[in-house]
Amino acid sequence: MPIQIEDIQRPDKSVIEGLAEIGSATAAGVLNRMGIRDPHMRGILPFTQGKVAVGPAVTLQFMPKREDQYKADEYSDPELQLHRHALYHAEAGDIVVVDARGHMGSGVFGDMMLTYFKGKGGLGVVIDGCIRDYPKAKELGIGLWLKGTTPNFHTQTDIFPYAVNVPVACADTLVMPGDLIVADDDGAVVVPITMVDALLERAGQHHEWEEFSRQRLLQGGELRRYYPLHNDARPEFEEWLKTQSH
Amino acid sequence: MPIQIEDIQRPDKSVIEGLAEIGSATAAGVLNRMGIRDPHMRGILPFTQGKVAVGPAVTLQFMPKREDQYKADEYSDPELQLHRHALYHAEAGDIVVVDARGHMGSGVFGDMMLTYFKGKGGLGVVIDGCIRDYPKAKELGIGLWLKGTTPNFHTQTDIFPYAVNVPVACADTLVMPGDLIVADDDGAVVVPITMVDALLERAGQHHEWEEFSRQRLLQGGELRRYYPLHNDARPEFEEWLKTQSH
Amino acid sequence: MPIQIEDIQRPDKSVIEGLAEIGSATAAGVLNRMGIRDPHMRGILPFTQGKVAVGPAVTLQFMPKREDQYKADEYSDPELQLHRHALYHAEAGDIVVVDARGHMGSGVFGDMMLTYFKGKGGLGVVIDGCIRDYPKAKELGIGLWLKGTTPNFHTQTDIFPYAVNVPVACADTLVMPGDLIVADDDGAVVVPITMVDALLERAGQHHEWEEFSRQRLLQGGELRRYYPLHNDARPEFEEWLKTQSH
Amino acid sequence: MPIQIEDIQRPDKSVIEGLAEIGSATAAGVLNRMGIRDPHMRGILPFTQGKVAVGPAVTLQFMPKREDQYKADEYSDPELQLHRHALYHAEAGDIVVVDARGHMGSGVFGDMMLTYFKGKGGLGVVIDGCIRDYPKAKELGIGLWLKGTTPNFHTQTDIFPYAVNVPVACADTLVMPGDLIVADDDGAVVVPITMVDALLERAGQHHEWEEFSRQRLLQGGELRRYYPLHNDARPEFEEWLKTQSH
Amino acid sequence: MPIQIEDIQRPDKSVIEGLAEIGSATAAGVLNRMGIRDPHMRGILPFTQGKVAVGPAVTLQFMPKREDQYKADEYSDPELQLHRHALYHAEAGDIVVVDARGHMGSGVFGDMMLTYFKGKGGLGVVIDGCIRDYPKAKELGIGLWLKGTTPNFHTQTDIFPYAVNVPVACADTLVMPGDLIVADDDGAVVVPITMVDALLERAGQHHEWEEFSRQRLLQGGELRRYYPLHNDARPEFEEWLKTQSH
Amino acid sequence: MPIQIEDIQRPDKSVIEGLAEIGSATAAGVLNRMGIRDPHMRGILPFTQGKVAVGPAVTLQFMPKREDQYKADEYSDPELQLHRHALYHAEAGDIVVVDARGHMGSGVFGDMMLTYFKGKGGLGVVIDGCIRDYPKAKELGIGLWLKGTTPNFHTQTDIFPYAVNVPVACADTLVMPGDLIVADDDGAVVVPITMVDALLERAGQHHEWEEFSRQRLLQGGELRRYYPLHNDARPEFEEWLKTQSH
Repeated sequence: MPIQIEDIQRPDKSVIEGLAEIGSATAAGVLNRMGIRDPHMRGILPFTQGKVAVGPAVTLQFMPKREDQYKADEYSDPELQLHRHALYHAEAGDIVVVDARGHMGSGVFGDMMLTYFKGKGGLGVVIDGCIRDYPKAKELGIGLWLKGTTPNFHTQTDIFPYAVNVPVACADTLVMPGDLIVADDDGAVVVPITMVDALLERAGQHHEWEEFSRQRLLQGGELRRYYPLHNDARPEFEEWLKTQSH
Repeated sequence: MPIQIEDIQRPDKSVIEGLAEIGSATAAGVLNRMGIRDPHMRGILPFTQGKVAVGPAVTLQFMPKREDQYKADEYSDPELQLHRHALYHAEAGDIVVVDARGHMGSGVFGDMMLTYFKGKGGLGVVIDGCIRDYPKAKELGIGLWLKGTTPNFHTQTDIFPYAVNVPVACADTLVMPGDLIVADDDGAVVVPITMVDALLERAGQHHEWEEFSRQRLLQGGELRRYYPLHNDARPEFEEWLKTQSH
Repeated sequence: MPIQIEDIQRPDKSVIEGLAEIGSATAAGVLNRMGIRDPHMRGILPFTQGKVAVGPAVTLQFMPKREDQYKADEYSDPELQLHRHALYHAEAGDIVVVDARGHMGSGVFGDMMLTYFKGKGGLGVVIDGCIRDYPKAKELGIGLWLKGTTPNFHTQTDIFPYAVNVPVACADTLVMPGDLIVADDDGAVVVPITMVDALLERAGQHHEWEEFSRQRLLQGGELRRYYPLHNDARPEFEEWLKTQSH
Repeated sequence: MPIQIEDIQRPDKSVIEGLAEIGSATAAGVLNRMGIRDPHMRGILPFTQGKVAVGPAVTLQFMPKREDQYKADEYSDPELQLHRHALYHAEAGDIVVVDARGHMGSGVFGDMMLTYFKGKGGLGVVIDGCIRDYPKAKELGIGLWLKGTTPNFHTQTDIFPYAVNVPVACADTLVMPGDLIVADDDGAVVVPITMVDALLERAGQHHEWEEFSRQRLLQGGELRRYYPLHNDARPEFEEWLKTQSH
Repeated sequence: MPIQIEDIQRPDKSVIEGLAEIGSATAAGVLNRMGIRDPHMRGILPFTQGKVAVGPAVTLQFMPKREDQYKADEYSDPELQLHRHALYHAEAGDIVVVDARGHMGSGVFGDMMLTYFKGKGGLGVVIDGCIRDYPKAKELGIGLWLKGTTPNFHTQTDIFPYAVNVPVACADTLVMPGDLIVADDDGAVVVPITMVDALLERAGQHHEWEEFSRQRLLQGGELRRYYPLHNDARPEFEEWLKTQSH
Repeated sequence: MPIQIEDIQRPDKSVIEGLAEIGSATAAGVLNRMGIRDPHMRGILPFTQGKVAVGPAVTLQFMPKREDQYKADEYSDPELQLHRHALYHAEAGDIVVVDARGHMGSGVFGDMMLTYFKGKGGLGVVIDGCIRDYPKAKELGIGLWLKGTTPNFHTQTDIFPYAVNVPVACADTLVMPGDLIVADDDGAVVVPITMVDALLERAGQHHEWEEFSRQRLLQGGELRRYYPLHNDARPEFEEWLKTQSH
C-alpha cells in the first residue's frame, strides 16, 4: 500500500527567474525589511562552490530514532523508507529541503538517490545534516548545501525519515512545502511563497547605479560619494550610463 | 472557530501505579534490554527536587518563529495561541511534554497557565526549554522538568507553538501523544504505550533481594557477594527475609 | 596615580520600588512590547534561590588575557586590579554587572571582595561567569546571579578585568552603566534607564484581576473565562473584590 | 581469573587534614603560583551542596563503546565490568575520579554501587558525567561532584569502562592515580601528590589577618585598608587579636 | 634512555587493496550490519580533497597539559617528545591516528614532521584536532583528515603527547593500534582488524548492477525499478551487461 | 556632526616585510616563547585559500543589538553606521579586524564595502563572524579570514557596530588598534606592536638548515639526524650548502 503524500504547488517560471537575478543576499535583506527577521538557514554550507539554485521546496522531516517506531534495515522493503518518497514527489527544478535535526552521523541521501534526483531534473538539496558518497555526489551537477558529509547511511545512528511535504524546521528556520529557496555561496534563504511577488517588486527598485559605483570604488572612489550614490555624483553617473553599451 | 485536536488515550490506573513503583532508572534499564536504546530525555533537569510524576503525555510542538506565520501578540485573541490548547486537552494525571527546540529564551508557560493546569489535576510538565514565573510556579505542587527558566514570555524571541498532540522530539527523544512519562530526580523517561505491559512484567521479576543487599553493602559487605546476590549469600538472605515484618 | 572612573547616575528610590513590585517576568514582557526584543541575560542562573534584587548597574568588563597587557599577579599592587575599582564605585543598593566573557574558569570575585561589597550595602552581582569562595559567599545575604562557581581566582586562566563603568555585553545583552537590573529566580533582566518611567506606567495598568483569576484557576476554573479575564466573569470578579480585606 | 590492578599509594592523615583546612579555592590559587595553571575540573558541579571531601584519587577511565570490544550486558558476568573493580580498589577516605568523557547519557554508578562504596568508607565521587539513582544516592552521605544525573545505566549508550587506576583526563584535567582531590561547593581541584607538601607550606603562610579583615569589611571598612591588610591597619589588627579568645 | 613502544601488526597487502575498492561509505554501512553501530570519526574533515587513504593505524594519544608532568619546551631534548615517537614507529602505508582531544589550538604536527612521515612512505594522518604549517603540508601528497589548522605548535596551549600505540578515542571513536582506517572525502572510518575479513566477504556480494542502475537513474529511470534493482529490470540489466566491454 | 576616531600608527615597511617572511606558524611559536601564550585567533578560517596578509589592524567592535541604542535601518543616514567608519580609517596595507561576537547571522561587510576597501589598497579582513556577498567578495583579491558567510546584512539580527579603533576581543584574542596581523592558510595571528622588533630578531636566528633538512627528510632521512639538525649531519649540510646557487 503506497504512502499518500500531497504534492507541492509550483510557481511560474518567471518567478524563479526573477529570484535568480536577485541572489540570496538581496532576498535576505529585502525580506527583513518586509518583516521576516532572519530567512537564512544558518550553518548550512555550500559543498558545491559556485553553484546557484532557485526553486520550490519539497520537504523531508527526520525524527529521533526510536526502535519501536523504526525497525526496517536499509535494504528490506525500500518503499517503507520515506526519504525515497521525498524524491518521488520531486520534479524538475525542485529543491529538497531536509530537517535532519543537525545530525552529523547520518547520510540523508547517497549517490544512487541523488543520481535519481538529478535524472528527474532536480536542482539541489538543502540539508540540516549530511549526505554520504560525497566523492560521487559532487560530480553530479546538482547543488549541495549541507552541514557536512559522512560515510554512514541515513538511519545508521540516531534519526530516521518521518514525514514528507510537511512544514519543517531546517537549521532553525521554518520552511513550508512549496516555499521558494534561493541558495548560493552565501548560503540558503527561504522565501515564503506568499511573499515572493512583493519581494520581487521591492527588490527591482534600486540597483541601477550599483555597477557604476562598484567600478568607482574599485578605482579608489569615496564611499560617501558612491555608496549609496550621493546626489553630487549623479551627473557623473548619468555620463557613465551613456558610455555603457546596450 | 475552535481548533480541533484529538485527545489522547489514557491507560488504566494500575499501569500508572505499576510504573510509579519502578522509577525512571529501572524503566530506562529494562526498556534498553527490550530494544529501546535510550529513552532518557537528556538535558531536562528536575526543577522541583524530590517530585515524582508518572502519567500519559499530552504533547505540544514549537516551531521556529516566522513572522508571516505567527503574527499575534501575547494578549490579542488568546484562543489562537496553541500552548493554551495543549492545556485544554490535559486532564487530571496528565503530563504535558513540550518540544520547545531547546530554546532558553522563551517561557513556554507562565504561572497563570500552570495554575490552570494544576487546577485540572495536572501532574507535571517536561519541557525541552523554559517556563517563566518560576518563583510562583515552584510553589504550585506540580512537577517541573525543564532546561531552565526565563522571564520572557512564550513567543518573545525565536519560537512559537505550532501543534498539539502530534509526535514531538523532546530533547532528541521521540514522544508520541499518549506515551507514558516517568519523571523523578534522575530525569524524565518516555515509555512507549505499546511496551508498558511487557515492561511491567519484566521489571517485576528481580529486586526481592535488593533491600537486603543494600543493607549489607552499607555495613561494609562485599559487592561480589551481595550485588547481584551470589548463591553463597542466598541462605543468609532467606534468614533475613524471615526477620522482616510484613 | 589613581585610575579615574566616572560614577553612575542613580534613580529615585520610587523607581526602584516600582520595579521591585513588577518582577522580572512582567518587566521582560512589557519591554518587549515597547520594542526591546530580549532583555533577559540568558544563561545566568540564580545561585541564591529566592533572592530578589533591583538596582542600578555598576559595570565591569573583562577581556581575553594577553601577557603583555596583564602582568600583575593577584597580590602585588592590588590597586592595579580593576575588579577592585568596580567595587570602589559601588554604593548601597547597587548591582555589579560583569561581562566575564562567559568564562567558567575565573572566579571574578572571592569572599573578601564580596564581603566588602556587602559592607557597603551592595545588593547583588550579575556575572556572565563565576565567583569563587561560593561556600562563604552564599551566606553573605547578597544576591548571586552567575553561570557557575570555581575555586580559581579572577585572572588565573584566560581573562582579566579591563574597564569599569563602560557599556558591557553581559550574556549577549548590552548593559550601559546606570541601567536598572531586575533579578529573581526567573533570571536577570536589564531595563534601559531611559525607558523605566514608561515601563512602570505600562506595567501598572493590568493585573488587578490577576490574584482573583489565580484563585479560580487553582479551583479548576476555565482558562477561557479567567485568563485573561473574560467580560462574562467580570461581575464575579467585582463581587470577589468586595470580599477582599484592605 | 581476576583482573589485576595496582593499588594507589595513600598519604599520611596529616596531609589530608592540612588540605581540608585550606579548601579548594586556596589550593587552586596557590597551585597556580606554583606553576599549575588550572587544577579545577571545570563543569563538574556539587550535587550534594555543603559537602566537602579531601582524599586520594582512585581512577576509572571510560572509552567510546565499540561493540566488538564491549559485548557484556549489565548483569551477565559482573566481574568483567571494570567500574566494579574501581570500587574494589577503593578504601576508606578515598575519592573515585571518573573520566566518563563528559557523557550525559550514562549513569556511571547506581545506588547499589555507591552504597557499597559508602560501606567501605568512601568519601565521594568526582565524575565527568552522570550517576543514576540520584534520589537514593544523595541520601547516602557521600559527596557527589557530577555533570548531571540520568536514569540510564553505565553502558546503556555510547561509553564503557575501560581501565582502573590509570592516568585519566577528567573534565580536561589530568589526574594520576593517588593524586589528591579537594572538593567542595566551589568545585573539585586536583593536587599532584608530589606537590602537596610544598602547597601546604605555602598555603599556611598568610591568612592570620583574614578573619579580622572579613569582619571589618562587613562593617563597611575600606578594601584598601583591610584587603590585603595595609600597614596602617596593622596596629588595629594587633589590638583585635588580643581580644580574641583562644 | 629510549622510550620502548610496541610496533603494530600490519595486514596483508590484499586486505588493504580490498578495502580500498570498497570505500568508506560501504565500509561504514556493512560494519553497521555486522554490529558496529558507528565507525565514523565524526567532525574530522578532509583537508586534501580527493585523497583516499587505506592503511593500519599507528596511534598517538594527547592528554591535558599539567605543568608538573610536561616541562619540556619544543626544541630541548626532542627525544622526550612523544609525537616524534609515533612517527618513528610508522612505516610505509601507515596512517597516524591522533586523539588530540578535539583541541583547536595545538598543531599536532608541523611540516618537518609530516615531511619525514612522507619520506617514510606514510599515507596520511587522521587527527581529532589540528596540524600547523598547512600551506606546506597540503603540498606533500599525504592525506590530511583534520578538525582544522593552527599556527600554534603541538604543546603551545592545553595538551601534550602522552602515549604511542595505545588504544585511543579519536573523535569519540575507539581506535586500537593496528586497526584499519579507510578515509576519503566522506570522512574517516575505523575497521577493527579482527572484522576486516568478514567485512570484505560481505561487501563483495552486491554491487554488480550498481553501475547499470546509476546510468539508468541519470537518464531519468524510476528509483523503484533500478535501486535496488527490481526483478522486472533484471533482463534489461542482463542485456546491458553484454554490451559492456571487458 | 562627524564621529571622531583616532587613527592608528603604522610601522615601517621593513617590519611588515620581515613578518611576511616569517609566516604565522613561526610568529605564533616565537611569541609563545616570548611570553604570549596563544596569539592565534581560533576558529577564524581562510576563505581565500593561498592568500597571505601582513599589516596593521584597524579594529571594529560589534555589540549585542538593543533597540533603544540602535534604531537606524541599513540605508538611512549611512554616516551613522560605524562599520563604514572603520573603512574610512583604513589605508593601503591595512587589515580590518572585527569583533563580531562570533555571530553567524550578520554579514559584517557586503561587496560594495569590500570593494571600497580594496580600492583604498586594503589587504584583508579578519572577522570573528561573517561577510555577505561572498560570491563577489572572493573575486576582489583581498584576503578573507572569517567564521563563515551569510546573505544577511550587518545589523539584520542580533548585533550592531559599536566602536572603531578600540581594543577588541576577536575570537577570544585581544587585539589593540595598530597591532600587527599575520594571516595565511594556518590562520590569523596577532603580534603586539611593542613586541615585533624582538620577535623579528628571535625569528631570524635559526632556519638556515631547514630547507636542507626538508629535502633529506623527504628522501627518507632520519628525523633524529635532520630535525633539528644533529651535529653529526652538519658536515653533510655544509657540503650541501656549497652546492646551492646564490
